[in-house]
Amino acid sequence: MNTLGILFRLTTFGESHGVALGSIIDGCPAGVPLTRDQIQAALDRRRPGQSSITTARAEPDQVEILSGVFEDKTLGTPIAAIVRNTNQRSGDYDKLKTVDRPGHADAVWRERYKHRDHRGGGRTSGRETLCRVIGGAVAEAFLARDLPRVSTVAWVSQVGDLVAAVPEPGITRAQVDAHATRCADPVVREEMSKRILAAKEAGDSLGGSIDIRVEGLPVGLGEPIFGKLKALIAQALGSVGAVTGVVWGPPDLLARIEQPGSVFHSQKEMYGGIQGGLANGEPMQLRAFFKPPATLAEHAKGGRHDPCIMPRAVPVLEAMVSMVIADLVLQMNAFHHTA
Amino acid sequence: MNTLGILFRLTTFGESHGVALGSIIDGCPAGVPLTRDQIQAALDRRRPGQSSITTARAEPDQVEILSGVFEDKTLGTPIAAIVRNTNQRSGDYDKLKTVDRPGHADAVWRERYKHRDHRGGGRTSGRETLCRVIGGAVAEAFLARDLPRVSTVAWVSQVGDLVAAVPEPGITRAQVDAHATRCADPVVREEMSKRILAAKEAGDSLGGSIDIRVEGLPVGLGEPIFGKLKALIAQALGSVGAVTGVVWGPPDLLARIEQPGSVFHSQKEMYGGIQGGLANGEPMQLRAFFKPPATLAEHAKGGRHDPCIMPRAVPVLEAMVSMVIADLVLQMNAFHHTA
Amino acid sequence: MNTLGILFRLTTFGESHGVALGSIIDGCPAGVPLTRDQIQAALDRRRPGQSSITTARAEPDQVEILSGVFEDKTLGTPIAAIVRNTNQRSGDYDKLKTVDRPGHADAVWRERYKHRDHRGGGRTSGRETLCRVIGGAVAEAFLARDLPRVSTVAWVSQVGDLVAAVPEPGITRAQVDAHATRCADPVVREEMSKRILAAKEAGDSLGGSIDIRVEGLPVGLGEPIFGKLKALIAQALGSVGAVTGVVWGPPDLLARIEQPGSVFHSQKEMYGGIQGGLANGEPMQLRAFFKPPATLAEHAKGGRHDPCIMPRAVPVLEAMVSMVIADLVLQMNAFHHTA
Amino acid sequence: MNTLGILFRLTTFGESHGVALGSIIDGCPAGVPLTRDQIQAALDRRRPGQSSITTARAEPDQVEILSGVFEDKTLGTPIAAIVRNTNQRSGDYDKLKTVDRPGHADAVWRERYKHRDHRGGGRTSGRETLCRVIGGAVAEAFLARDLPRVSTVAWVSQVGDLVAAVPEPGITRAQVDAHATRCADPVVREEMSKRILAAKEAGDSLGGSIDIRVEGLPVGLGEPIFGKLKALIAQALGSVGAVTGVVWGPPDLLARIEQPGSVFHSQKEMYGGIQGGLANGEPMQLRAFFKPPATLAEHAKGGRHDPCIMPRAVPVLEAMVSMVIADLVLQMNAFHHTA
Repeated sequence: MNTLGILFRLTTFGESHGVALGSIIDGCPAGVPLTRDQIQAALDRRRPGQSSITTARAEPDQVEILSGVFEDKTLGTPIAAIVRNTNQRSGDYDKLKTVDRPGHADAVWRERYKHRDHRGGGRTSGRETLCRVIGGAVAEAFLARDLPRVSTVAWVSQVGDLVAAVPEPGITRAQVDAHATRCADPVVREEMSKRILAAKEAGDSLGGSIDIRVEGLPVGLGEPIFGKLKALIAQALGSVGAVTGVVWGPPDLLARIEQPGSVFHSQKEMYGGIQGGLANGEPMQLRAFFKPPATLAEHAKGGRHDPCIMPRAVPVLEAMVSMVIADLVLQMNAFHHTA
Repeated sequence: MNTLGILFRLTTFGESHGVALGSIIDGCPAGVPLTRDQIQAALDRRRPGQSSITTARAEPDQVEILSGVFEDKTLGTPIAAIVRNTNQRSGDYDKLKTVDRPGHADAVWRERYKHRDHRGGGRTSGRETLCRVIGGAVAEAFLARDLPRVSTVAWVSQVGDLVAAVPEPGITRAQVDAHATRCADPVVREEMSKRILAAKEAGDSLGGSIDIRVEGLPVGLGEPIFGKLKALIAQALGSVGAVTGVVWGPPDLLARIEQPGSVFHSQKEMYGGIQGGLANGEPMQLRAFFKPPATLAEHAKGGRHDPCIMPRAVPVLEAMVSMVIADLVLQMNAFHHTA
Repeated sequence: MNTLGILFRLTTFGESHGVALGSIIDGCPAGVPLTRDQIQAALDRRRPGQSSITTARAEPDQVEILSGVFEDKTLGTPIAAIVRNTNQRSGDYDKLKTVDRPGHADAVWRERYKHRDHRGGGRTSGRETLCRVIGGAVAEAFLARDLPRVSTVAWVSQVGDLVAAVPEPGITRAQVDAHATRCADPVVREEMSKRILAAKEAGDSLGGSIDIRVEGLPVGLGEPIFGKLKALIAQALGSVGAVTGVVWGPPDLLARIEQPGSVFHSQKEMYGGIQGGLANGEPMQLRAFFKPPATLAEHAKGGRHDPCIMPRAVPVLEAMVSMVIADLVLQMNAFHHTA
Repeated sequence: MNTLGILFRLTTFGESHGVALGSIIDGCPAGVPLTRDQIQAALDRRRPGQSSITTARAEPDQVEILSGVFEDKTLGTPIAAIVRNTNQRSGDYDKLKTVDRPGHADAVWRERYKHRDHRGGGRTSGRETLCRVIGGAVAEAFLARDLPRVSTVAWVSQVGDLVAAVPEPGITRAQVDAHATRCADPVVREEMSKRILAAKEAGDSLGGSIDIRVEGLPVGLGEPIFGKLKALIAQALGSVGAVTGVVWGPPDLLARIEQPGSVFHSQKEMYGGIQGGLANGEPMQLRAFFKPPATLAEHAKGGRHDPCIMPRAVPVLEAMVSMVIADLVLQMNAFHHTA
């Protein structure tokens, strides 16, 4: 299904080499200040071609709002926003018509749908994530109005075998964005840049991890059982193609999981801000692991390829988390409103 | 929300010290052979008091089917099954009326719901997982009829700092169940037992990991974008209280994530049976990390406590995975049926 | 699907001659005063055998609450309540094993599910509506706390060709319940009683209509487009087996629909309390038409049969309307809460 | 909520005087033949300005497919299609900025959403129904491939106090469309035309009814309880703004409802093709009642107004019914597929 959420709902559409991609956000309350520029700015953070370490594909990715916003405020009606594909060099892909790309899901999709869109991966393309960034921008506009203390910041914490130091709690998106790697460690990120460039030249790729920190969540956010904050976060992050693992807790959680309970539970931060599935008022901490992207040698050599997608995935993961929070805030409102 | 799934849907209810817990399974096709004994056998695998390394609480957990089954076949109507709480020693818990248990979500839930059921955790109790085992038993009965080649087997792969060897591919549930630890490594599991017993005596607890292997999935299983096989698995496993991380891929995936793409993607098993979010026909491999359970010293000393919940969590995770598969099989049927 | 609602959700289960029927209500906020007696009282209004004009079947229909209520307040967890079938005279029905009852859906269900529960209609039985009455009792307990000005009252407005006068606006459930017909017209109802008794003796049956009036709805209740108040009411009432038509508007709406717009719209009550799909603050008025029940002659002669189900359907329709309102109130809370 | 359906899902967006309106259809299987022309032809049937008896507004309503279709076949991915608003004469509406239109829901929406889009009704406009026609065109393309014997035909059966004769069973859309009234009675429709023209000149309006006949439904279509065929049809038709009543059964059902069961049930057609909530293999028959549209005198005089919306509502109702059928067909596939 192409819809995420129960009350704050994102539906995405569009193939990577079709006419356009887009998002419908249904459930954003009325009266939330929202401009096209806010959404465009969010897309610009994900856009390829931002630096030498990302793909050379130029995708201007200009967003057009079709509905749901009037005089820079949301109407409470569905917000539709689209990005036209201007760079449809499907000639590049014609050779793929009969060839499955190794490491891609081409063969699996053909088996499933019989009729596959060979033009660049269709819906499996990472390009689909721009739709999520649109949704995240709307979610963050809503949270900025109703829960201004909530902040979600993600950064690259590992590239290949290079592991960054854990940043100080108050880290901001601006600080993360200041470096092309979106790593916050001033020493390690220089080395990361070099490794990514080397992989790019070699037609190779690198994986690693992204850490996410959310501050200011209301205590009790989350629904019990299947709608636990951590379950919905897991689905949201697990729905991003390259993510191959999710951990809820501090950056070194997996190392400390071998501690006995008497030690483990004496460290309040081990809960990663979640207890019983609900936010406990402490910062929520998450880590997502990424496979190195699959590459197609001749394709990679043309430069139309991200040797390491994590810098560009940072705003995507932030968007996913923000949408889960927005949805759970609406659910909490529903049940806890008192007239 | 207390419901999981779109077509194969489990709804659970019941507080750990209320009258009963139960499950409604809506969406199991008609005509599937299913007996009360099958469900009871599944519950018996999760039941406490199975061995010296689990809690001494005796919970007979006898299931009663209220609807949806007639003459040992499903009717296509909702299957309701309940387990009465016979061991409601709420006196044990009266002292908790004004005390929040450290490491538990008591304070968070009270903040959220104001009115908390102090009798043993209410819905946050691990006892709720018996409802999932009921759902899993129904899902597996359905899969046994329609996709008999599907098999889901989980085992304990780590306890504290003890790491088990990866078992041979053909491992069965019977082999796993043959040892109280549900670890398949004949050497390491003996040491695991000792550690768990020591933790039990010390009123302490241990975490670790469970590995899951699913064979026989149809190629293409899973829905694109937010309904990806791995996204739904992540939600399902992430909805289990003690799970603190989920990885899709072979047991050593996190160690090998630092490999460059050229190496990583040359190993077909690195996909863990999932590509583009869909099953690729190879065995699906998963790992779930567990926190050591939070304990309450005096409570633990009474023995009413699991020092290591993973042996009993094995059938719970299998149930969660089986329900996700059943739901996705029904969805695939819907869209790929040809008249 | 056996679930109704998005936030206030009723799931029903149980076959008419199985072990038990029951309801799960998920989404009732915590802290709502609710007792078993409240639910039992609602069931007693629907119960057969209340008077000479209904079926002679004695179904004590005693409800047991299994979860979700503690110390007479809702916990915010799913409320499960069941009614055991004590009157399982399935011998009565054995003769039906190979015979489809004329006018019933037996043949249709057998075609659909292959394997049919011949013991009295399974899920198609009117007995399933007791599950809805349970859900309605919970919805009304919630509304009584949060929107005490909301009142929903239904009454029988037509039996066969006997049409009752429209009652005064302030009519109460107690006034309706005072007569076995649940018709509020003191003259016509006496004739209705006679006709129903005559039909009972003749093994015949009668249809007609029920009117519903809801006061005190908050202005704006309802969701746009597919979640319009009138659309959800239509689904809820249309899901009751014997209902064969639904009209939103005053009792004589269909007669006045031939008026030109200039006349029609000069009468504010013509909107029936709904404009643009949302409640407009005026009383909501509805009418549901009922087919005469299908009967099986020899069965009817045994008296185990309702010659006119409308008197007993009154509390069922009230329950359906109350659940729709509760669901929409929660949705309105979600989007219109301001911190 | 702006989404209809469980598996075949339509999400609509767009305000009547915003940039564009559009539809996302998620759940149409892959490989269904579908062209832009098919969708455009469906829209042309709903378009204003088709004849002297409809509004003089010229809305070319050109559809653009953004995704989900490639080489004239569906991809199995979401189908997005939009119609830009070229006729945004919002100057016409500026005078409405502070005036609520009598008979419209303006006041109710402003109360609900505080911030109302005054430009022509926003989402409450009948213009939103073009999105449904797009969804219906996709549903019918799917049904044409998988269930080619299904046909859905609607016609105007009453205008004001003029009642048409019931047409012969084999009536086609072409026959209905042959007259501007979309009434199939060759005598009465001439009088209907005159009445509608007279109402147009007087700035007045007319209501009435539309009948719908569906042939070729598979026996057993529909889900039990809340997903009954008739319940979902009721929601779908009830979600159309001007519909004020829905009846399942033959055209004269309401007149014959006063018959005793012994007579009523001897006429097989009284079930209207639905028994126990499921299709019984006979033609499904429905009637929807329409209020006369609310008008604004000066607005009506400019001709930008439909004195009788029923002729244009015929394809809208057909679309709603086709989408419900498509959704239920997918659900039936899900549960009844056998490998």
